[in-house]
Amino acid sequence: MSALPAPDLRLHYELAWRVLQGFIADAVATTEASGVVVGLSGGVDSALAATLAVSALGADRVHAAFLPYGASSQVTRTDAEAIATWLELDLCGIEITSVVDAYFDAAEQAEADRIRRGNFTARTRMAVLFDQAKKHGALVLGTSNKSEILLGYSTIFGDNASSINPLGDLYKTQVWQLARDRGLPDAIVDKTPSADLWPGQTDEGELGFSYGLADEVLYLMFDRGLTPEQVIDRGYEAELVERIRDLEARNRFKRRLMLIARLSGSAINLDREIPRD
Amino acid sequence: MSALPAPDLRLHYELAWRVLQGFIADAVATTEASGVVVGLSGGVDSALAATLAVSALGADRVHAAFLPYGASSQVTRTDAEAIATWLELDLCGIEITSVVDAYFDAAEQAEADRIRRGNFTARTRMAVLFDQAKKHGALVLGTSNKSEILLGYSTIFGDNASSINPLGDLYKTQVWQLARDRGLPDAIVDKTPSADLWPGQTDEGELGFSYGLADEVLYLMFDRGLTPEQVIDRGYEAELVERIRDLEARNRFKRRLMLIARLSGSAINLDREIPRD
Repeated sequence: MSALPAPDLRLHYELAWRVLQGFIADAVATTEASGVVVGLSGGVDSALAATLAVSALGADRVHAAFLPYGASSQVTRTDAEAIATWLELDLCGIEITSVVDAYFDAAEQAEADRIRRGNFTARTRMAVLFDQAKKHGALVLGTSNKSEILLGYSTIFGDNASSINPLGDLYKTQVWQLARDRGLPDAIVDKTPSADLWPGQTDEGELGFSYGLADEVLYLMFDRGLTPEQVIDRGYEAELVERIRDLEARNRFKRRLMLIARLSGSAINLDREIPRD
Repeated sequence: MSALPAPDLRLHYELAWRVLQGFIADAVATTEASGVVVGLSGGVDSALAATLAVSALGADRVHAAFLPYGASSQVTRTDAEAIATWLELDLCGIEITSVVDAYFDAAEQAEADRIRRGNFTARTRMAVLFDQAKKHGALVLGTSNKSEILLGYSTIFGDNASSINPLGDLYKTQVWQLARDRGLPDAIVDKTPSADLWPGQTDEGELGFSYGLADEVLYLMFDRGLTPEQVIDRGYEAELVERIRDLEARNRFKRRLMLIARLSGSAINLDREIPRD
């Protein structure tokens, strides 16, 4: 069977920008927040989220923070500074090395592997961003994209936790599109995606496939409603499709706050819809 | 107008116990976890959650942790140890003082008030419990009750974050009922509820009303669907009802992971129901 053309994930840039800008402006106005706090990692997601926030709120209402851990590379710092400079934001550096190490230096935790250390680091960053938000009366701006969320490539209650997330309905390849369209620095847009939790880590290396392919498969399954078999029939490798389906199913728990036991007719988050105001 | 009789919040103890036990056993079996990690604070909620877990899984599959911060009182420690002894659990003590202080000792954060310190402490406990869960291949057992959740008396992504929560559909007064019925030590059941984030803090002092009254009002509004006006007509003070309604509405955001912008027809957590498996 010959492959069908790849699905078209191109955005209408102007429209997408206007909707996402409005989302940030509305959320800040409704909650009477002073603005947003965003953690700049040097990557394209947080750079795009910050750019959106500056264009929605103005630079004086966007607090940019850089939260390096010892292992964070110098490139990361240079890139975070480049974005802040480009957006004319002050970059508030808060070192988290001593916080994370205070936990793992204890004898009982000394044998922790890099996954445990990475998760704890991501959750410490979350705690610091929410604390900075409290300090400024602001919201925490999330930077997880739709590819990461659907694949569960995140730490629950860590990098996946925020007050509002303007990128959660954009696939990674769409983040790249929008970032290019807005003229973000090439060094940021073209760099290899990495969670930067240990030296040499890359998203695509850990996932075992490229975002380009993953996004097509995710789009066909989640936006177009195709079954895995139908996706495979369109010419995608069965192994890839199964792996993506498996990641999505196994990590679904990261998209809920938690599972709450049900006893009554009014169990929270179960029967009861939370009004969205 | 004369007051109507208070609503009846009494549980069917045997039935409630069986349902909540089954909830924990099912969640652990489905996720192939080794058991659960629970943070014992010395309070009745975590004591009851731990008792449920031991009865659902056996003591050898329940990892109890005590996570004191410098300000935690000696009573807290004594009570956490009493519960662990009563349940025949080893209590793993992990001091978090150095972790929290590593952040606030920096000059820029030194002026943080007790709310910021309390929130950061609650989030650090969450990060430690999830790390211990990863270490043991276990789930984090939540201990928030329905009164706290509806009133938003919690730290988002802190004490309100867990993998599974057996108490989330029990009002505080129902937690007390069930704890008494199961014979939990009086010292735990009868003590004044406190988040223990600063000396002298009590839930009812901070909230400005008792759980007994709050639970009746919450039950009438959320389980029975009465409007605030109808609740007031039943004889409750207007000021109390308004304050409870206001807390519920203002803190609703704590019951969602976050708000995600919508661009496509398949925005996550919005149009799309997450299957509960």
